[in-house]
Amino acid sequence: MTKEDTKAKILAVGAQIVHEKGFNNTGIQEILSAAGVPKGSFYFYFKSKDEFGLALVDYFVSLMGGWMDSHLADPGPSPVKALKNFFDELMAYFLEKGCKAGCPVGNIAQEMADLNEAFREKAEQAFTQMKQRIKRCLEAARECGEIDPVMDPDETADFVLNSWEGALLRMKAQGDIRPLRIFDKMIFDGLLKR
Amino acid sequence: MTKEDTKAKILAVGAQIVHEKGFNNTGIQEILSAAGVPKGSFYFYFKSKDEFGLALVDYFVSLMGGWMDSHLADPGPSPVKALKNFFDELMAYFLEKGCKAGCPVGNIAQEMADLNEAFREKAEQAFTQMKQRIKRCLEAARECGEIDPVMDPDETADFVLNSWEGALLRMKAQGDIRPLRIFDKMIFDGLLKR
Repeated sequence: MTKEDTKAKILAVGAQIVHEKGFNNTGIQEILSAAGVPKGSFYFYFKSKDEFGLALVDYFVSLMGGWMDSHLADPGPSPVKALKNFFDELMAYFLEKGCKAGCPVGNIAQEMADLNEAFREKAEQAFTQMKQRIKRCLEAARECGEIDPVMDPDETADFVLNSWEGALLRMKAQGDIRPLRIFDKMIFDGLLKR
Repeated sequence: MTKEDTKAKILAVGAQIVHEKGFNNTGIQEILSAAGVPKGSFYFYFKSKDEFGLALVDYFVSLMGGWMDSHLADPGPSPVKALKNFFDELMAYFLEKGCKAGCPVGNIAQEMADLNEAFREKAEQAFTQMKQRIKRCLEAARECGEIDPVMDPDETADFVLNSWEGALLRMKAQGDIRPLRIFDKMIFDGLLKR
């Protein structure tokens, strides 16, 4: 494997472990062992655990961004329906995962934002990118008269994203999908219903 | 100091440090040093770091519960106004704190729920107690005709609490109070507006 292949493998394996166990709670050696990379070679690929963590956020953003775009970049005749389908698929994913782990960006923001300014900025960039995709979808919904025209797509997109993050956090504590169902009902049968 | 005094001091000092730095990222020795308790004596007070962490959640719940009760137990003629005042005070608190730290229960749930079932249960008990206080306030609001009578106080209380948790998480990432202001607007000028 090339250096880039190995780096990509460390990120893919590390993403899974950090998503399940948290960033501060995951050791570098554990990731290298799981990736089948010789112990002690970590610093050949990343300058520090922090540099690895920042690269992990980029990795999560690129996965999530692709998934969001496949649903929302061309939302079709009913943008609100496209948005609901996107969240419904995420709900099915978390049900399958046993209502664990939550949002990888939310988790790392929670752990690291106050400790390291580079993580705070990186996490906020990630949230902003997700929010922009929701915002464009809501703008499309407003243009075709699907939502109340007085609704501000920018603030509404932030509220939807932030409320989803909170629902995922509560899902982890409850060990149940109920918080996501309540989110779905309040957002799609309430806030975005015309 | 008696054993109970010292234990209470370790909890009060530990609560502040864990709130700022996270549970997995805080060492026992750091807490003992800050509390002025001799190194090595931790296990005289707590069986393990986990037992300490679970006691911390109880500590946070008792603080937050008292604060919530002072606003919500007897909400007066306008329960929605009482609820808004409660969140407005929290918003002022976080503005004062530089938009850092977030919800101590949310943080520990995020870090520990998947790693340790006792933490998951303890965090969910804490969330449930907060939710019940919001629910009783919404029931009072419904009785005096302040909110739409078709609104389910139980699900609405969960949604309000979870969305607040998400807003606090985003506040940490953004380093700005904006997510809390959007929460306030969407909940009190939207969802709970009649």
